Amino acid sequence: MRLPIALIGAGRIGRIHGANASADNRIELRYIVDPVAEAAAGLSAMTGAQAVSLDEALDDKEVAGVVIASATQTHADLIERIASLGVPIFCEKPLDLSTTRARACVDAVTRNGIPFVIGFNRRYDPDFARLHALARDGALGNVESVQIVSRDPSPPSLDYIRASGGLFRDMAIHDFDVARWLLGEEPDEVSASGSSIADPAIGEAGDIDTALITLRTPSGRLCSISNSRRTSYGYDQRVEVHGSLRTARVENHPETRLLVSGDEGRTRSGIKHFFHDRYAEAYRLEMRHFVSVIMGSETPRTTVRDGLRALELADAAAQALKEKRTVQIQYVR
Amino acid sequence: MRLPIALIGAGRIGRIHGANASADNRIELRYIVDPVAEAAAGLSAMTGAQAVSLDEALDDKEVAGVVIASATQTHADLIERIASLGVPIFCEKPLDLSTTRARACVDAVTRNGIPFVIGFNRRYDPDFARLHALARDGALGNVESVQIVSRDPSPPSLDYIRASGGLFRDMAIHDFDVARWLLGEEPDEVSASGSSIADPAIGEAGDIDTALITLRTPSGRLCSISNSRRTSYGYDQRVEVHGSLRTARVENHPETRLLVSGDEGRTRSGIKHFFHDRYAEAYRLEMRHFVSVIMGSETPRTTVRDGLRALELADAAAQALKEKRTVQIQYVR
Amino acid sequence: MRLPIALIGAGRIGRIHGANASADNRIELRYIVDPVAEAAAGLSAMTGAQAVSLDEALDDKEVAGVVIASATQTHADLIERIASLGVPIFCEKPLDLSTTRARACVDAVTRNGIPFVIGFNRRYDPDFARLHALARDGALGNVESVQIVSRDPSPPSLDYIRASGGLFRDMAIHDFDVARWLLGEEPDEVSASGSSIADPAIGEAGDIDTALITLRTPSGRLCSISNSRRTSYGYDQRVEVHGSLRTARVENHPETRLLVSGDEGRTRSGIKHFFHDRYAEAYRLEMRHFVSVIMGSETPRTTVRDGLRALELADAAAQALKEKRTVQIQYVR
Amino acid sequence: MRLPIALIGAGRIGRIHGANASADNRIELRYIVDPVAEAAAGLSAMTGAQAVSLDEALDDKEVAGVVIASATQTHADLIERIASLGVPIFCEKPLDLSTTRARACVDAVTRNGIPFVIGFNRRYDPDFARLHALARDGALGNVESVQIVSRDPSPPSLDYIRASGGLFRDMAIHDFDVARWLLGEEPDEVSASGSSIADPAIGEAGDIDTALITLRTPSGRLCSISNSRRTSYGYDQRVEVHGSLRTARVENHPETRLLVSGDEGRTRSGIKHFFHDRYAEAYRLEMRHFVSVIMGSETPRTTVRDGLRALELADAAAQALKEKRTVQIQYVR
Repeated sequence: MRLPIALIGAGRIGRIHGANASADNRIELRYIVDPVAEAAAGLSAMTGAQAVSLDEALDDKEVAGVVIASATQTHADLIERIASLGVPIFCEKPLDLSTTRARACVDAVTRNGIPFVIGFNRRYDPDFARLHALARDGALGNVESVQIVSRDPSPPSLDYIRASGGLFRDMAIHDFDVARWLLGEEPDEVSASGSSIADPAIGEAGDIDTALITLRTPSGRLCSISNSRRTSYGYDQRVEVHGSLRTARVENHPETRLLVSGDEGRTRSGIKHFFHDRYAEAYRLEMRHFVSVIMGSETPRTTVRDGLRALELADAAAQALKEKRTVQIQYVR
Repeated sequence: MRLPIALIGAGRIGRIHGANASADNRIELRYIVDPVAEAAAGLSAMTGAQAVSLDEALDDKEVAGVVIASATQTHADLIERIASLGVPIFCEKPLDLSTTRARACVDAVTRNGIPFVIGFNRRYDPDFARLHALARDGALGNVESVQIVSRDPSPPSLDYIRASGGLFRDMAIHDFDVARWLLGEEPDEVSASGSSIADPAIGEAGDIDTALITLRTPSGRLCSISNSRRTSYGYDQRVEVHGSLRTARVENHPETRLLVSGDEGRTRSGIKHFFHDRYAEAYRLEMRHFVSVIMGSETPRTTVRDGLRALELADAAAQALKEKRTVQIQYVR
Repeated sequence: MRLPIALIGAGRIGRIHGANASADNRIELRYIVDPVAEAAAGLSAMTGAQAVSLDEALDDKEVAGVVIASATQTHADLIERIASLGVPIFCEKPLDLSTTRARACVDAVTRNGIPFVIGFNRRYDPDFARLHALARDGALGNVESVQIVSRDPSPPSLDYIRASGGLFRDMAIHDFDVARWLLGEEPDEVSASGSSIADPAIGEAGDIDTALITLRTPSGRLCSISNSRRTSYGYDQRVEVHGSLRTARVENHPETRLLVSGDEGRTRSGIKHFFHDRYAEAYRLEMRHFVSVIMGSETPRTTVRDGLRALELADAAAQALKEKRTVQIQYVR
Repeated sequence: MRLPIALIGAGRIGRIHGANASADNRIELRYIVDPVAEAAAGLSAMTGAQAVSLDEALDDKEVAGVVIASATQTHADLIERIASLGVPIFCEKPLDLSTTRARACVDAVTRNGIPFVIGFNRRYDPDFARLHALARDGALGNVESVQIVSRDPSPPSLDYIRASGGLFRDMAIHDFDVARWLLGEEPDEVSASGSSIADPAIGEAGDIDTALITLRTPSGRLCSISNSRRTSYGYDQRVEVHGSLRTARVENHPETRLLVSGDEGRTRSGIKHFFHDRYAEAYRLEMRHFVSVIMGSETPRTTVRDGLRALELADAAAQALKEKRTVQIQYVR
């Protein structure tokens, strides 16, 4: 029998998870929950799952897992409720915009002993995973520094930005997770610089669109993160690990492998445009992982605590930016 | 209602077409036909289609299209029989190993007026398609020459080779089609050189494993094809069009975008290993095209006559190799 | 008549300048000055210039220019003495390790009105110069951020490090200059993080071997500098300018253009090993520029004030590292 | 004492050799010989050598070597005369346009036992030399095929073409030499196809501008040569050796290492424009080799017989093109 699964949220990211869940023949995507009836109906038509209310979905005791892909402010409540039912959870990042609530989520998951996977998709990308394996297997020697370039093709709407918790919590949160994962050690110092040079309206909304973040771990490993909300050339996702023996990097993914030579030079295609095409395979593997976790054949590769740690780093970066100083992090637990 | 489709052949290539057909929600893959019961049952389980006999499949008057992916020697008979029923056909290359039979296939298709798509998958590869568009749109200027490198990772079994019709009809046939397509003009001169240097056993079986083929068109366009049955580095598929204004090429597809730098140099991953991963997207688009052809929204991009022409070039190359001279081609029709 | 020139310093960098000066047929490299008689004699033999004492060289009133390539602690005295003679000066970086002395150098040069070129070689590198031209000409749009990776293949001796003024003043000083030049605006905020993770002995000597530096300009342009004293793969010199319209970067220079493909992947040669081969052309063009400045046909592209500004940034970075805060820079003049 | 050398020919290629010879401090470039007084005077001014007549140069019994860089039709006479004097010779390719005369040159060199170096510059290119070393050292396994792409940026004048002996003897001659060198075995079968598609006037002058040449060796190694007199993107010089263990290639040399990304794609600079910049280092090393040969510390890497063999392949290709058949070569000696 296929395990019945419910998906909460039928927006942009919900549709990605819905498509991947319905293609995994170990499960049955049984329910779609979304207050926007049209969105729920659309994804229902696409996947064959039923559009129902949250209560209806959670009342079905056969439901073996829930995928949370709804708005950020709903995450913590949903996690606490579903955890109390003992049902495995996949939750999109971030857990919450408040570390207090995020800690409560960690507690709820721990107390109820449920399997929980946070949606840090990049760890599931095959290239990133190989880079991590090289770092962990010693092929690079001792990891000395990590360079992350992470830039979106274009800024989201100002409404989105105002509700986002800011660039650090909304966008850089992925990079904080990648940094922790590749550094192999918890950063305890954070500094940050930023500006709203790409779009002054973002500055007026109280946020930045361009940032440089520096992390340092107790053993002296360094990490730089370069963020921008806007490029002219697609979704710029590069990561480099500088080790004592070798340095390895993941380069951008081009749209084609065509090279045109003329008197204007040698031109290749642009790179993948945004997260849905650059990380399509990562999303697929992430959902497969969640199903394996539900089935007990794998343990969570991205945990609820990873979700909390990334948020703590985002908070520290925000404080560092504001106070123009290096912030020391003391992890509570 | 979804159009019912039958698939003949559940081997390596049949499974690719079966998976793509069953993922296209405009059609219903209704039947699998394969004399090897296990193969038919396996693909049936994977796709939900029924494993039936050929007669059963063709007796169903609702069947709106047939995909022929069975052994080469069955193609011509199947084409003639299915064409006489007025049912659209997708057929894997080659039509047949004999140009006489291939011409009969062209006649059968023409006489019955059925839609027919030959499986020259490379034309459906997005990179090759963009290269062709550049050549046709004039971005490259006048096409002066085409360079094709087409090498397999490892030779097939000697049994396969003995039944294959030889490297030109079995392997280079794809390249002959790509050459015709990119040259934009029918080649009328062919010369060839070859050897069995990669594996002498192939020579003892009467075939070659390494070849250089040269084509020339009436206006003086030249094309070189470099074939090998064996590389140490994967499936080498490069094409370059040298034009009067620009030169464009399709490069190999790497397995990852990881770069490792150390004192041994800068190392990238190998390239895609073989046709099923390198041309996965092409196979998908090819099947989608066939469904669109059945539905009348597209006309065949790779026709039965394309299948014949490529075979005629293969025959000419074989003759050129044997007689050590440039062979002039006179196309009968 | 060829203009007579004197070169002070016949060490590693002196030999580079000596070779380039003797190949420029607009000048005559007349004198070599070095307290180490063997070094002076060696370079004298190589170039045909006379090995003399400093006084002898400066007593020759025909000397039209002096190249200072001696130890750092001699620079300021030499600059003041030669400037007072009204003789044009080319001086290797840094002016001095103390900003007070560096300011005195600026004063001496200004007061005496002599042409002065500081040896920030990277501005003369053809690739860097093209990148700068793209940024200045508007091809990139508004410059939003600059990323500099600058890593040496291996650390210098501990004796060198102890006398060097530290990584910021000795090594990053080039990067501070490149940053100012490409940002097109004077940075007024500096933060820094560092460690001696590559070689703990460097830490015991009071210095760091790995650093991340962040600069910010008044309009919000950001710059990150990633330094390391040790790579496993040569001299890593990459610079990227992220603009509102386009992003451009200079990539490393490979030693060969050979690509080897096998089952181990696709391997290219390593990159140029160190500054003398990576920047060979820059050193040549830099010396040609100095000769043109002497002859009055060009004005200094790298000025004595550029030397001071880079040093002020190095001081600010050292303070930021020590005090773990963002340091605001107020330029005295 | 520096060895006195004479240079015959002060044209384009003579100036390259003259500059390299005058920079080698083991020799003294003593004489320049050119019937065009202005050319001789110009190179004399540049190098400090005396412009003299041929007789004057050869009457100087101290002359230890002669560089022949004059017009092709003068080569054979000069070789015979200088060889009879027992003086070492460096001669630009080709020996002559007639194999009969070329054989006479081989005889003259052999009979007089003089050191002789033919100017096949590509063998001295560091990248080509490394590729050859990989092929010879077994790193590639058994060499199975060689692919050469060799294209000029623009055709020479029609006058040049009429006197050139045709594309095979004038341009492809370098490629025939590279082919022999990399194949490691003497080709005994040649076929060729060609057209004047880039410039019909070249066809009217009796030559071709685009060619595909195929070589085969007795053990079955294959080689393809793709030539064009005209690209839109510089001097296209690529060579690939396909071996049983690995495949290695030399790629084109870019003018810069700049990459610009925008919505138009990712653009790199063009490649080196023509032979003088692409092979600058090869010309330098070639001349150093000749000096070492004169001094007895090296034996000729490119011999007079190599000059003859390449010409024999050119003749065979011309015959193959004309007779539309594969030509078998029987080497006389």
